[in-house]
Amino acid sequence: MKILITSGGTAEKIDDVRSIVNSSTGKLGCAIAEAFAAQAPGAQIFYVCGQSAVRPQADVDVKEISDVESAKNTISRLLMEDIDIVIHAMAVSDYRVKSITTPDGTLEMIGGKISSYCDEITIHLERTPKIIDTIRTLSPKSAFVGFKLLSNVPRGTLIDVAYALLRRKDCDFVLANDTAEISKDLHKGYLIDKYRRYTEHSTKAEIAQAIVQATMKHRRRK
Amino acid sequence: MKILITSGGTAEKIDDVRSIVNSSTGKLGCAIAEAFAAQAPGAQIFYVCGQSAVRPQADVDVKEISDVESAKNTISRLLMEDIDIVIHAMAVSDYRVKSITTPDGTLEMIGGKISSYCDEITIHLERTPKIIDTIRTLSPKSAFVGFKLLSNVPRGTLIDVAYALLRRKDCDFVLANDTAEISKDLHKGYLIDKYRRYTEHSTKAEIAQAIVQATMKHRRRK
Repeated sequence: MKILITSGGTAEKIDDVRSIVNSSTGKLGCAIAEAFAAQAPGAQIFYVCGQSAVRPQADVDVKEISDVESAKNTISRLLMEDIDIVIHAMAVSDYRVKSITTPDGTLEMIGGKISSYCDEITIHLERTPKIIDTIRTLSPKSAFVGFKLLSNVPRGTLIDVAYALLRRKDCDFVLANDTAEISKDLHKGYLIDKYRRYTEHSTKAEIAQAIVQATMKHRRRK
Repeated sequence: MKILITSGGTAEKIDDVRSIVNSSTGKLGCAIAEAFAAQAPGAQIFYVCGQSAVRPQADVDVKEISDVESAKNTISRLLMEDIDIVIHAMAVSDYRVKSITTPDGTLEMIGGKISSYCDEITIHLERTPKIIDTIRTLSPKSAFVGFKLLSNVPRGTLIDVAYALLRRKDCDFVLANDTAEISKDLHKGYLIDKYRRYTEHSTKAEIAQAIVQATMKHRRRK
């Protein structure tokens, strides 16, 4: 069995020292990788992660990526193999830098770094390609879990938005969570299936457990 | 003896899940903290660092910060005490978000998160307060090391820009480095003094060593 887990966040460069990032420690992706390693002995686990993401202790094949483009390339290459289960937990930048300007029309650079003495800077962002689309196109038969992270929304909105993602992107499950329900010891997560049923979990370990069980069961049914 | 080391990078929020960051692992600041702990037994070491920065193994007092404002507040509070040596290795954001717009004048938010379905977004940035100024104002008598990181510039430019910082900010030393000379095993650094003399170093451990020796000697001379 082959399992692909994406984890952590991507970083889109502004210049050689500055980036736009999605805050993600990679701890949830890491917990999922550990849970699969423990419960699917013999499985080959690929762990594609951002540069600052936590890495599993377990024996997994780690591939580090930087921006959305590199994540897309790495994931696409891995999906050339037959992957049975894909867990797309990575916080992917939705936007990347298109151009940078200053009000007076000049942008002072020192080598590859924007000078720290501009008064104001304007960064124009454009949409990145959707990696979730790439995954489903290249791997239509895998058990596929998408993720939706929102911030400070009512539970109903969270479930609605996450389920809309599941339908639109043809996921088998979506894990919905809200920053307001994530702290050091708590991580509320709602694992939604194709029938909009969901189970509720309170820690990263519980979420990881639920995802392993749901995807392994899903795969056996196929 | 009291020593303050700033390390890692600050993060300026775009929304609840996205930030602008200065790429910094905190490894150099961490090496400096370890070197002081080893060579100044009994010293009280404060280590102010960004959220994803590496933490020292040694017994230091860690204070975690998020954005420039929180870094400035934490550092200012610590400088109320009499600090003998300040090593300002932190990669501080020079800019923070002033406003966010879209070409059609609407910005779709879901709770505290910008929708991932805007076509284009424009982020307007303004300058942050300079923490290096705050440090020198609050702690005029400490042995003070500033840092200058550039990217892909000739050596002469690097030394010139770093020495200009030393003069302008009244540092006792400035550590100059260039992203092009930093890799996994290599970290070139030039420690410049008030007379524009500099010593050259090739690893984080060597840089840390040079900073410890230079600042301890400087303090004894006072």
